[in-house]
Amino acid sequence: MTALNRRHLFAATAGIALSNAATAAPLSALRRIATEEAFATPDLVRAWLEIARTTPGISLDVPTGIMSIFDNPAPGSNQDGFRRRLLDIGAERIAAMNDAGVDVQLLSVTIPGVQIFDADRGAAMATATNDLLAAAIARHPTRFAGLACLAPQSPQTAAAEMERAITKLGLNGFIINSHTADRYLDEPFFAPVLEAAESLGRPIYLHPRAPSNAMAGPFRDYSMGGSIWGFGLETGTHAVRLILSGTFDRFPKLKIVLGHMGEGLPFWMWRLDHMAARRMKDGRMKRLELLPSQYFRRNFAVTTSGFEDPDVLAMVIRRAGIENVMWAVDYPYESSRDAVAFIDNAPISRSARRAIYHGNAERIFHIAPS
Amino acid sequence: MTALNRRHLFAATAGIALSNAATAAPLSALRRIATEEAFATPDLVRAWLEIARTTPGISLDVPTGIMSIFDNPAPGSNQDGFRRRLLDIGAERIAAMNDAGVDVQLLSVTIPGVQIFDADRGAAMATATNDLLAAAIARHPTRFAGLACLAPQSPQTAAAEMERAITKLGLNGFIINSHTADRYLDEPFFAPVLEAAESLGRPIYLHPRAPSNAMAGPFRDYSMGGSIWGFGLETGTHAVRLILSGTFDRFPKLKIVLGHMGEGLPFWMWRLDHMAARRMKDGRMKRLELLPSQYFRRNFAVTTSGFEDPDVLAMVIRRAGIENVMWAVDYPYESSRDAVAFIDNAPISRSARRAIYHGNAERIFHIAPS
Repeated sequence: MTALNRRHLFAATAGIALSNAATAAPLSALRRIATEEAFATPDLVRAWLEIARTTPGISLDVPTGIMSIFDNPAPGSNQDGFRRRLLDIGAERIAAMNDAGVDVQLLSVTIPGVQIFDADRGAAMATATNDLLAAAIARHPTRFAGLACLAPQSPQTAAAEMERAITKLGLNGFIINSHTADRYLDEPFFAPVLEAAESLGRPIYLHPRAPSNAMAGPFRDYSMGGSIWGFGLETGTHAVRLILSGTFDRFPKLKIVLGHMGEGLPFWMWRLDHMAARRMKDGRMKRLELLPSQYFRRNFAVTTSGFEDPDVLAMVIRRAGIENVMWAVDYPYESSRDAVAFIDNAPISRSARRAIYHGNAERIFHIAPS
Repeated sequence: MTALNRRHLFAATAGIALSNAATAAPLSALRRIATEEAFATPDLVRAWLEIARTTPGISLDVPTGIMSIFDNPAPGSNQDGFRRRLLDIGAERIAAMNDAGVDVQLLSVTIPGVQIFDADRGAAMATATNDLLAAAIARHPTRFAGLACLAPQSPQTAAAEMERAITKLGLNGFIINSHTADRYLDEPFFAPVLEAAESLGRPIYLHPRAPSNAMAGPFRDYSMGGSIWGFGLETGTHAVRLILSGTFDRFPKLKIVLGHMGEGLPFWMWRLDHMAARRMKDGRMKRLELLPSQYFRRNFAVTTSGFEDPDVLAMVIRRAGIENVMWAVDYPYESSRDAVAFIDNAPISRSARRAIYHGNAERIFHIAPS
């Protein structure tokens, strides 16, 4: 255990917050690439607020997630600090990374991204956001990498933007915040997006958002639509739709990245296989080329974002394979120091730690080794 | 490893079905109580079919689950055999138990139970079904125990039936198939049912059914509403509603049993705690007396029904506590022999195996020790 971690654990026990500590931790010899790190742009914030104000009930996440943070937070309040950290993709963010020992952040625009806009505006906002992201990376090329956002509601335009994002802007992959206007990526409508990801050889990070309207009913009470429960069930359900629809038979090289330890799929994998095998035998389900667990290993990767449970990590490594597990913080929603302490202290081998911290991210997201 | 298990594993590897083997396995010295074992009555089947025929789309489970099994299956077909096994609560069932080495089945009526009827009919069907169940147990008191069904749509009548089921019929607890007409047990409307369970000191087995209509949208494709995915998410969401609503602060001694290794909750427990603690601190969530993981240990028990993954079992034992884990088969949907082989061969201590096979069920369901 390093001195930093001992200090961290002591602080956690004693209830002391270390994230604003003045002393900077030295960068570790072990490169740490955080793979689900959120940012926003002033233009996106303005557009989200406008939609939230004029379209009541457009989705669960707009009012609860966005309004409270962005709508005139009191100066110096927690919301105000959070808003500042989310909008900053420069000095303050890099200082926080240095403080926690994070070498690289793979940046992606926070929910709801550009998926709540109409098709034309979504496409225009995606282009502008990706340009801004590429510029931030160009200013700090050794500290930032980035996932392009896109507007699947306009699939052909999205596919063109995906190509531009990789070949012209040098971004590393794509982020999609689960459903788009209650539609899922297994629908043939979205085929151009999946085709582009596969042919460009870059993964889609399937990030949570609150459950689609056709699923949201029981999640509207007790704030269950968000990160405490609904996010995982929405995104896990999306991933299972991709598996059971045969999407990966159509796109065998497509790679989907799931955050939050795989959004429940590793837990359910035995039962998914058991029921899929039975249903295929009975003719109650379309015959797939592989079992769900085989698609999971071939077509998915998993990150540890916002989920610091060593038992769950062990399960994820067994289900996904160590070559498909990557580290993530979910900055600024979660503590970078806590996420570092989690993997630094996880009961895994040195080679597993290297794979999770940087080796897999370098390979899967095409991030240049240091 | 016993000879039975070696034979079973060999057969599993070789793809040979043993469930109809003529040779009866001797009952083991280790008592095996299976705790989620399904039956139906001819009256219920008739009533389900009538509703399925006259109310299209009443729920996901009626057409897919019931119609295919009960609506004139071809004699000798798989559906016909399944229908017969589900309706039999006598000789054929006991022969199957003997064959697999199952000492006791804790019987409960299969989905959708009496929860899809109107209040009066539901209450009447519950009474008739519980009488029939008690009579079957009286004929085989050392081989069967039973959970009373009830119609939560008529909460006061259900509470009276719950008292009758325990004090007059000698049944062991209660079964509720998740939502009732899209409503969940955290609603104050159902308080009499929870109050009765708590004051009688008997658990409610919260059994899956397909997602409620307000949640069902994304589950309507690829048969995702059933046991392959929707069952677990519906029931897990129901359990999380009970936790986050503060239901267990109102009913601190209420015990809820979850099948299928806890319907995903053990996987999500770290994140449930993390997010609940943050939300309570921020004032975004009602302040609860305990954290979700503490309610899980105090107010839940978990069974292994239809889920034979040793990694998941280990996680469940750590989260629920060994004193809250019970064995189940889900006869006749699942293979009793496979479920026996799973626990016989699980890498757990002898005392853990005894607790899971019978000790916990005897205590939690008040089943007399042999």
